[in-house]
Amino acid sequence: MNFAIIRYILGWVLTFEGGFMLLPCIVALCYQEKSGFIFLLCALAAGLAGRLLTGKKPKNTVFYAREGYLACAMSWILLSLVGAIPFYASREIPSLTDALFEIISGFTTTGSSILTDVEALSHCMLFWRSFSHWIGGMGVLVFLLAILPMAGGQNMHLMKAESPGPSVGKLVPNVRKTASLLYGIYLAMTFVQILLLLLGGMPLFDALCISFGTAGTGGFGIKNSSIGEYSTYIQAVVTIFMFLFGVNFNFYYLLLLRKPKDAFRMEEVRGYVLLYMAAVFLITLNITGSFEELGKNLHHVAFSVSSIMTTTGYGTVDFNLWPQFSRVLMVALMFVGACAGSTGGGMKVSRFIMYGKAVKKELAFLLHPRSIKVVRVDDKALEHETVRTTNAFLIAYVLVFLLSLLILSLDGFDLETSFTAIAATINNIGPGLGEVGVSGNFSAFSPLSKFVMMFDMLAGRLELFPLLLLFYPATWRKH
Amino acid sequence: MNFAIIRYILGWVLTFEGGFMLLPCIVALCYQEKSGFIFLLCALAAGLAGRLLTGKKPKNTVFYAREGYLACAMSWILLSLVGAIPFYASREIPSLTDALFEIISGFTTTGSSILTDVEALSHCMLFWRSFSHWIGGMGVLVFLLAILPMAGGQNMHLMKAESPGPSVGKLVPNVRKTASLLYGIYLAMTFVQILLLLLGGMPLFDALCISFGTAGTGGFGIKNSSIGEYSTYIQAVVTIFMFLFGVNFNFYYLLLLRKPKDAFRMEEVRGYVLLYMAAVFLITLNITGSFEELGKNLHHVAFSVSSIMTTTGYGTVDFNLWPQFSRVLMVALMFVGACAGSTGGGMKVSRFIMYGKAVKKELAFLLHPRSIKVVRVDDKALEHETVRTTNAFLIAYVLVFLLSLLILSLDGFDLETSFTAIAATINNIGPGLGEVGVSGNFSAFSPLSKFVMMFDMLAGRLELFPLLLLFYPATWRKH
Repeated sequence: MNFAIIRYILGWVLTFEGGFMLLPCIVALCYQEKSGFIFLLCALAAGLAGRLLTGKKPKNTVFYAREGYLACAMSWILLSLVGAIPFYASREIPSLTDALFEIISGFTTTGSSILTDVEALSHCMLFWRSFSHWIGGMGVLVFLLAILPMAGGQNMHLMKAESPGPSVGKLVPNVRKTASLLYGIYLAMTFVQILLLLLGGMPLFDALCISFGTAGTGGFGIKNSSIGEYSTYIQAVVTIFMFLFGVNFNFYYLLLLRKPKDAFRMEEVRGYVLLYMAAVFLITLNITGSFEELGKNLHHVAFSVSSIMTTTGYGTVDFNLWPQFSRVLMVALMFVGACAGSTGGGMKVSRFIMYGKAVKKELAFLLHPRSIKVVRVDDKALEHETVRTTNAFLIAYVLVFLLSLLILSLDGFDLETSFTAIAATINNIGPGLGEVGVSGNFSAFSPLSKFVMMFDMLAGRLELFPLLLLFYPATWRKH
Repeated sequence: MNFAIIRYILGWVLTFEGGFMLLPCIVALCYQEKSGFIFLLCALAAGLAGRLLTGKKPKNTVFYAREGYLACAMSWILLSLVGAIPFYASREIPSLTDALFEIISGFTTTGSSILTDVEALSHCMLFWRSFSHWIGGMGVLVFLLAILPMAGGQNMHLMKAESPGPSVGKLVPNVRKTASLLYGIYLAMTFVQILLLLLGGMPLFDALCISFGTAGTGGFGIKNSSIGEYSTYIQAVVTIFMFLFGVNFNFYYLLLLRKPKDAFRMEEVRGYVLLYMAAVFLITLNITGSFEELGKNLHHVAFSVSSIMTTTGYGTVDFNLWPQFSRVLMVALMFVGACAGSTGGGMKVSRFIMYGKAVKKELAFLLHPRSIKVVRVDDKALEHETVRTTNAFLIAYVLVFLLSLLILSLDGFDLETSFTAIAATINNIGPGLGEVGVSGNFSAFSPLSKFVMMFDMLAGRLELFPLLLLFYPATWRKH
């Protein structure tokens, strides 16, 4: 393992985080909040520490997948440890565990909160919380790749470790250009959403925070009622943008290349749209008693399904109060999640497409054992490695889920609460059912449970293996 | 697809079922119950129908895996349809859906019941219910293979379709001999248990029924309190025998061959024993407040864990009332289940061993992408086909589970009840938590939900693919 290069990458991550922290300083300046000094101090300290770590370029530039995965896991942990300091130092979140939980929930775009009263936070803290979604959504390492001129083959491994989905396609052969393109699309779409929200009469601060949360599919609100108090127009804009940020970004790239036919032929995007429409239809049918309610219900169901499928977690109504069928369907959607290559979490639509095809292939094998079957997605045969990794992902997912549930149950909450608390954190959603429903929060869990959920949030965002690698003894042996 | 040979096998299944039904006739004779006539009529009709179907030997003896799987699925459905008739015809279970649910629960060794008062049934019905566990435990097709001289390669495919576990090892090269050996061990162990129960002063009828339920890891009791009213000695005997019937029968065969070293080196058996002991330890720790209760608690925990892990489902105490950690641990054990090649259900310990190894292999791949890794179980390299099938099993399992849960939730029960009702049926256990806990039953579900659970019980017993093949259009196309 080449630890020197990992140190070097961590140094750059710190430097960038220092830079990011200057933004809440500006917010504090506008609202004349003293907490701004804390951000300034943190930014300076992080920048300085970053300079120290990046000062000496590592001589050994050997960089394999393992370095990529490890650098990724450690970057995210470091990012969170430093990011939690302002919450704690300002005493706005007086418990260190809670501060860490909150910022991990932010960076991993989960949106689960331990706060009972969000509106009590200062503006700069609210901004930092929401902005962490925006950084985490596309990923800090992808950002780093877009900005830094990095040498050699390391780039792809970093990209692969951080980007969600079973197989990471480079948009263009050059990794740096791919990363820039992704961030370009991301930035442009965020900008359009901010504009549309401002047009609806939303204050600039709200528009910025809500757009960051939408773009990263995070879900931290800045009001106790989440999006519930805003106008129907604003809710509609958020519905649409949540949905758009859950689409595989390859789709937008194909559109940019003026290849709309190829874009609309993407199996994952079609599956995503179909599933969305089916879920909205079924739930609206399930909760609607009379024709008069239809329009209003459709509006809120479209919002809620968009919010859950993309793993954002904003709320306008409390789906915890819906009939059992709709609640279970929402929980099922939590596991499916959004498209690979989007900012959304969950297991990803493309994995479910592959799983469905794997079962079909198995049945075909039973009928004709000697025939040769190849699983194809988007007219391309899946590589054996992708199939193997996708299967291993499901296995690891189930095992991590079971173990987490077991530890969480020590807190004595009902099964529904514990189960959906894990589902909401490992899939980076935010709210679950029961005590952790839209109108609840995660404050009542024990510190042990909170650490388990922090692990799950990070594991979910980085798709398990980078995090698991930290606990695999051979990783730390000399090679 | 060679339907002629499937018809032929179905004919024999009917004939055997007719034979089996003569046993409750004898019970009815002893207790002078009129319902005996129903069994007699059914036995004659089944025998006659069987004769008609088997009268003409099929000319085409082509028999591949697909015929094996399809014959297996259809045999079990036919077995259940005919087996339900006595319950319904005698009006002891007045609803046809319920009668079918009860007998499928019997044959699949699930033990979930729709009865609110078991003790109201006549002796011959109770006997038929428990005896169906015994038939289903080792399997009717394995029985058929042990008795009938069948030609050609068809035998192995039938055996493979019905026997639980990721890979079916023949004990001896000859399939008929393997089947006879398995039934020999099964019969001998059942006999020893009956003897031990009689020694404890249990009435013969009770000893027979309880032993059938234990041997098949079924769990239908003949008292409303399940095993709760019997003496501590009897409960201890049942604990031990449930545990023994959950062991891979290869273990006993190795003992018979006087190869105890090989037997005790079986990874699955070691994992099974370790998991059992760990679960008993943790739960006893969790529920015990004072030293005085320790002995009593250990006794009941040993019983309950044995009952759940082997997917039997007998109860002495209601684990639904335990603290949350113990309840969740019990639910987790439901999914693990017993050993492959035993009469127990669930996903099987060996699959979890393979899953654990697959994750480890994936982590090793991340560290050294170019190395060659082979997953070994019991010092033998796993074949690629076994790995693929084991992965496909998990995928299909998760998909069937999700879909079932979604349909069940239409009934409006709480998530805990719906979730554990599916867990209890697809893993062939019996009781779950909440409304379907040890002291509850399955009567309150809608017919639709009951049919879903019937499907799950059969799918669980036959390990999904034979049942799924029925719904795969290509199965019914001409080949």
